[in-house]
Amino acid sequence: MRDAYHEELDSIGEALVDMARLVGSAIGRATTAILDADLKLAESVIAADQKVDDLQHDLEARAIALLARQQPVATDLRIVVTSLRMSADLERSGDLAQHVAKLARLRFPDSAVPYDLHATILEMGQLAQRLMAKAAEVIVTKDIDLALQLEQDDDAMDLLHRTLFQHLMDDRWKHGIETAVDVTLLGRYYERFADHAVSVAKRVVYLVTGEHADELQQDVQPAIKGEGQAVAGGDGV
Amino acid sequence: MRDAYHEELDSIGEALVDMARLVGSAIGRATTAILDADLKLAESVIAADQKVDDLQHDLEARAIALLARQQPVATDLRIVVTSLRMSADLERSGDLAQHVAKLARLRFPDSAVPYDLHATILEMGQLAQRLMAKAAEVIVTKDIDLALQLEQDDDAMDLLHRTLFQHLMDDRWKHGIETAVDVTLLGRYYERFADHAVSVAKRVVYLVTGEHADELQQDVQPAIKGEGQAVAGGDGV
Repeated sequence: MRDAYHEELDSIGEALVDMARLVGSAIGRATTAILDADLKLAESVIAADQKVDDLQHDLEARAIALLARQQPVATDLRIVVTSLRMSADLERSGDLAQHVAKLARLRFPDSAVPYDLHATILEMGQLAQRLMAKAAEVIVTKDIDLALQLEQDDDAMDLLHRTLFQHLMDDRWKHGIETAVDVTLLGRYYERFADHAVSVAKRVVYLVTGEHADELQQDVQPAIKGEGQAVAGGDGV
Repeated sequence: MRDAYHEELDSIGEALVDMARLVGSAIGRATTAILDADLKLAESVIAADQKVDDLQHDLEARAIALLARQQPVATDLRIVVTSLRMSADLERSGDLAQHVAKLARLRFPDSAVPYDLHATILEMGQLAQRLMAKAAEVIVTKDIDLALQLEQDDDAMDLLHRTLFQHLMDDRWKHGIETAVDVTLLGRYYERFADHAVSVAKRVVYLVTGEHADELQQDVQPAIKGEGQAVAGGDGV
């Protein structure tokens, strides 16, 4: 019984990795689509987001079924609840990649990105893809050092975002308002995508180190005492 | 025992309503702050978001403790898991209200919003606040008709968002790039805020009607059969 149970827990982990790989690929392809004004590629990214949504839906169903049937406590409960949150991060990342692709489609046959910003947007897209690849690796390896690296990568994303804004605010900006609006939204999409990748990695850190778990246990302790019932499992949650 | 349990479930519901009220107030005050260039008000909105984060943290701790101690199944399990998701929506809404306030602070003593857009932004802010007030009411009353109203309100938000874009794209736009960028981001914040309010209401609908639950049960049935174990509780999840 416990074996089937842990197999199912593992399969939830695998679904998270699948989602991370799909959205990492999506942001890379969406970036190519918007820089090259490639309508076909944009359409394929937009269509492929359904697969991410399906994976999330399936993962949630399995996580909730697991809670109902196995009623995990302590670490296992934390893993299931955290997996639900990670899947929400990844689903949202997929939406953001789709937003980039939709902007590519909206401006086709033009590119939404002026040539003097191609390098910056390319770098943001590549960094976003790398961040998600690392997040997937963190899910698999539970490597805390790698997880902490993602925060530094996110600083690099913030720097690129500021570069983008400097271009926009430069008096010599000559691409008009529509492009300024597009570039503003694009910057926001990449920044939020990166935030979600960092969030996934942070949740793994929380699972491994139980960092939040201690505070959490303090919070719930009075309620537990008030009901005169001990918490099942070793670490309270 | 069951009474204390349901009391705790109720208190989670109350915490959600508290969060919704706080973020509804926050978006209203942030809108005033940005239109009036009121630095003090902006600062108070920025500081108040901590309270929302604390409420979420506390709610999550209690929800997870409840899962561990009471191991709910069926409807009760669905309520707890859905509450976790709603709290994430509300926490994020709080962030978005804070973003509006931060933009007010950044542009002080100027207003980030040019006069000819004051009415549109005011309307977006008011609508956002109303949407969140309705979401809070839906949590309390579980009124499905009211929940469905939110989607119509969201259509009105989309319309306002398009109005904003029409202003931006108008050849007569005379407020420069910086303001165009500010207005683009503002529009996005209000739109996302509204999305989260709608999402909260939709999750209540799901709880009451169990709409997703049926699909969900179909998904997990083979796995359950494979392990030769029935799902506890009436509606499977």
